[in-house]
Amino acid sequence: MIYAAILGHGVVGSGVAEILINEHKRISDKVKDDIEVKYILDLRDFDDLPYSDKFTKDFNVILQDEDVKIVAEAMGGVNPAYDFVKKCLNAGKSVVTSNKELVAAKGAELLSIAKEKNVNFLFEASVGGGIPVLRPMSQCLAANEITEVKGILNGTTNYILNKMIVDNMPFDEALKLAQDNGYAEKDPTADIEGHDACRKICILASLGFGKHVYPEQVKTEGITDISLDDVEYADNFNCVIKLIGTATKLADGKISAHVRPTLVSRDHILSGVHGVFNAVVVTGDETDDVMFYGKGAGKFPTASAVVADIIDCAKHLNSRKYVFWEDGDSDYVVTPDLKTRLYVYAKSNDYDALIETSALAFPDHDGIIKNRYKSEIAFLTDEDTESSLREKIASIKADKVKIMHTLF
Amino acid sequence: MIYAAILGHGVVGSGVAEILINEHKRISDKVKDDIEVKYILDLRDFDDLPYSDKFTKDFNVILQDEDVKIVAEAMGGVNPAYDFVKKCLNAGKSVVTSNKELVAAKGAELLSIAKEKNVNFLFEASVGGGIPVLRPMSQCLAANEITEVKGILNGTTNYILNKMIVDNMPFDEALKLAQDNGYAEKDPTADIEGHDACRKICILASLGFGKHVYPEQVKTEGITDISLDDVEYADNFNCVIKLIGTATKLADGKISAHVRPTLVSRDHILSGVHGVFNAVVVTGDETDDVMFYGKGAGKFPTASAVVADIIDCAKHLNSRKYVFWEDGDSDYVVTPDLKTRLYVYAKSNDYDALIETSALAFPDHDGIIKNRYKSEIAFLTDEDTESSLREKIASIKADKVKIMHTLF
Repeated sequence: MIYAAILGHGVVGSGVAEILINEHKRISDKVKDDIEVKYILDLRDFDDLPYSDKFTKDFNVILQDEDVKIVAEAMGGVNPAYDFVKKCLNAGKSVVTSNKELVAAKGAELLSIAKEKNVNFLFEASVGGGIPVLRPMSQCLAANEITEVKGILNGTTNYILNKMIVDNMPFDEALKLAQDNGYAEKDPTADIEGHDACRKICILASLGFGKHVYPEQVKTEGITDISLDDVEYADNFNCVIKLIGTATKLADGKISAHVRPTLVSRDHILSGVHGVFNAVVVTGDETDDVMFYGKGAGKFPTASAVVADIIDCAKHLNSRKYVFWEDGDSDYVVTPDLKTRLYVYAKSNDYDALIETSALAFPDHDGIIKNRYKSEIAFLTDEDTESSLREKIASIKADKVKIMHTLF
Repeated sequence: MIYAAILGHGVVGSGVAEILINEHKRISDKVKDDIEVKYILDLRDFDDLPYSDKFTKDFNVILQDEDVKIVAEAMGGVNPAYDFVKKCLNAGKSVVTSNKELVAAKGAELLSIAKEKNVNFLFEASVGGGIPVLRPMSQCLAANEITEVKGILNGTTNYILNKMIVDNMPFDEALKLAQDNGYAEKDPTADIEGHDACRKICILASLGFGKHVYPEQVKTEGITDISLDDVEYADNFNCVIKLIGTATKLADGKISAHVRPTLVSRDHILSGVHGVFNAVVVTGDETDDVMFYGKGAGKFPTASAVVADIIDCAKHLNSRKYVFWEDGDSDYVVTPDLKTRLYVYAKSNDYDALIETSALAFPDHDGIIKNRYKSEIAFLTDEDTESSLREKIASIKADKVKIMHTLF
C-alpha cells in the first residue's frame, strides 16, 4: 500500500482525487501496488463527497505522517505551495504538481532538494496539461541535443485569436466569449498578457537546456494589441497570428527566449493548432522538429497527467527519475541580433508621407499593402538582422507603428 | 562500463554506431556510466571506418560474450532478426530495435521472454522513427484508458499524396520523385500498398490496448488506386487524401483496425501533416486527443530513438520498463458495422443511368459533383451505418465505383 496526499481540492485537485479513487483498480494494476489517497488538504468543507473523511485543514498532519510517500500539490500560486512542497521534499516525500508558476519560479531549488533527498519532483502537467511533453523531452530525446523549444502554450489566447481569425470577432468580444465558456478567468491578465505562456516556456527551456530560465528574464508580450486589421493583413501574407513562446540555444551556450504574438505561415504545422489546443515543437540536432499536441488545460486532462506522475513516483519510490536542471544566472538569457523577417503595420494622418518614407526605408519592397482609406500600410520585410530592420522601420513617418515577428 | 553490440551496419545501424561513438561524453553523462560499443555484426567489410576493429561476422561472438548487456538490432526483416533477438533475450541481454516488421510479427513472444528473463525489450524507433510515441503512450497516458490510436504512419505515401495534392502531380510521377529523393525504395510495395503503415498500427494497437494485433488481422489498402480526380474532388469537399491507420477499442473490448486512404477534413489536425512527416493521434478517456508529430524516418532521427532506448536500458539494467502486451487471438480484431460517412466516386459510359440511379440511391443528397464531360460523379454521403451505405452504393449503375472512408 502506498499512501498519497493531495494539497488543494480545486479543479485539478478534485480531478486527481476522483481519478485515483474511481480508477483505483486500473491504476493499481499499472503500479502493481495499491495507491490510496490518505489526506486531502483544503480550507473549505466538502461534506457531501464519498471521500469526505479524507479532508484535513492542517498541512502538518500530512507532513508528519511518515506513511505518506507521495504528495500531489494542486493549490496553484507560489505561496504557500512553495513552502509546503519544500517541506514535503525535505521530509523525504516525492512531490508532483501541475503548478507552472511554482516550477517556473522555484524549479531549480526544488529539484535540487529532491536530488539531495533522493525523492522525485515531477511536474508533467505544468506544461501542456494532459499532453505528454516534459517526459518525452527528457527521456526520448536523451540522444539529442535540443536546440530550440517553441510552441502555442496558452489555450485561452489561442482560443481568442482563433475566434478573431475564423469568425472575424473583435478581441474584446472573443475574450468575453472565452470567459463565458470557462476558457478564461474573470481576471484574464495572466493569459492575455502572456505570463502563463512565459512560465511554460521557462519550464521547457530549463528542462531542455539544463539551466533555470526565470520568467523575469523572458521578454513577454501579450495579445491585447492585436486588431482584426492585423489578422486580415496576416491572412494576406498567408499567415495566422498566434501567441508563440520560443527558447533557442545560441552558439555560445546562452539562451534567447521570448513570448510574443507571431505571424505563423499557414504552411507551418503550428498554424493548424486551433481553439484551446496547445502544441510544443522541440527541435533536436538529430530528430529535427518533433511536435506534441493536445488540450493544454481542463480538469481531467491535467489531472490525468498529475496521476501519471503519481504512478511514476509510486513505481520509483526508491530511485530517481532523471529530471533535473541547474540554477541559472543573470546573464544566461540574452537578446541576440538575429536575422529575421518582421511584420510591420504603420498608420499616419499624413498618408503621403507614410507611403514616401516607407518606400525610402524599403526601396525594393513590392509586397506592401496600402490602405489609403484607413491611412495605413502593412508589409512583411525581407530577411535582415533585427536591428537593421528596426532602424529602417524607425525612419518611417507614422503616428502608430506595430511590429510583429514571423515564423515560416 | 556497459558494453553494447549493434546487429547490422546499414542506414540505422551505422547511425547508432556514429551517435554512440561521436556523442560518447554526452551520453555517458546522461547514463552516469560509459556505454561502449564492443561489436558490430555485419557480413560486409568496413575497413576504412575509425571503428573498423569492432566488426564481426559471427553472431555467436556477441551472444556468448557475457559483458555485452545491451544489443541494438538494426538488420530489418523478420529473419534472422527474430532468431538473434530471441537468443539475446534468452541470454539475459536487453534488446532494442527499430524493426517494425519484427515487433509487429513477434512482439508478444519477445516481450514475454524479456519479462521472464527480467531484461528490457524496447522499440521506440519502430513507430515514427525519431518521434517519441510509444514511451509517452505507455507512461504519460498511464492514468488514461486509450480508446483509439490513429495516424499518418508512413512518410513515403504521405510524400506522394502531398505531391499529388499540392503540385497536381500524377501518382506514378510522384512515386518516381520519391524514389529519386531517397524517400521510397526501389521496390516500393511495402510503402504504397500500406504494409509498412499496417505494421505500425499493429504495434500501436498492441501497446495501447494490451493485446497483440497481428498484421494479417488488419484490413490494409494502399494508395495505388488514388487518382488526381479523387484529389480534386476531395478538395471540393474541403478534404485532403491521407493514408490513415486506425485502431479503435470497441465497447465489447474487441478491436477494429485498418489502414486505408481516407478523406481528411482540412479542419482536422492530421490534414496539416505534410511531406515525409508522420503523426500519431492517441485518444484517451481523460486527455481527449493528443498528437505526436515529426519525421517518421531518416538515418539520424531513427538512430537517435534507438540510442535513447539504449540509454534507457543502461539506466535500467536491473529493472524492467513497463512495456508489455499479451498475445492476441484470432477473434480479437473484428469488423463492426459503424456509422460513418463515405466518399463515393462512380463512372459509367451510360451517364444518364449513373445520374438517375445515384439520385434514387441517395434521394435527398444535394452535394453531388456531376462531371458529364468525364461521365463520372463524386460525393460524400451523409452519416449512416457502413453496410447501409454500401447497399445503396451497390444500387448505382456504374462501370467503376471507388469508395473511401472519411475523417472529420
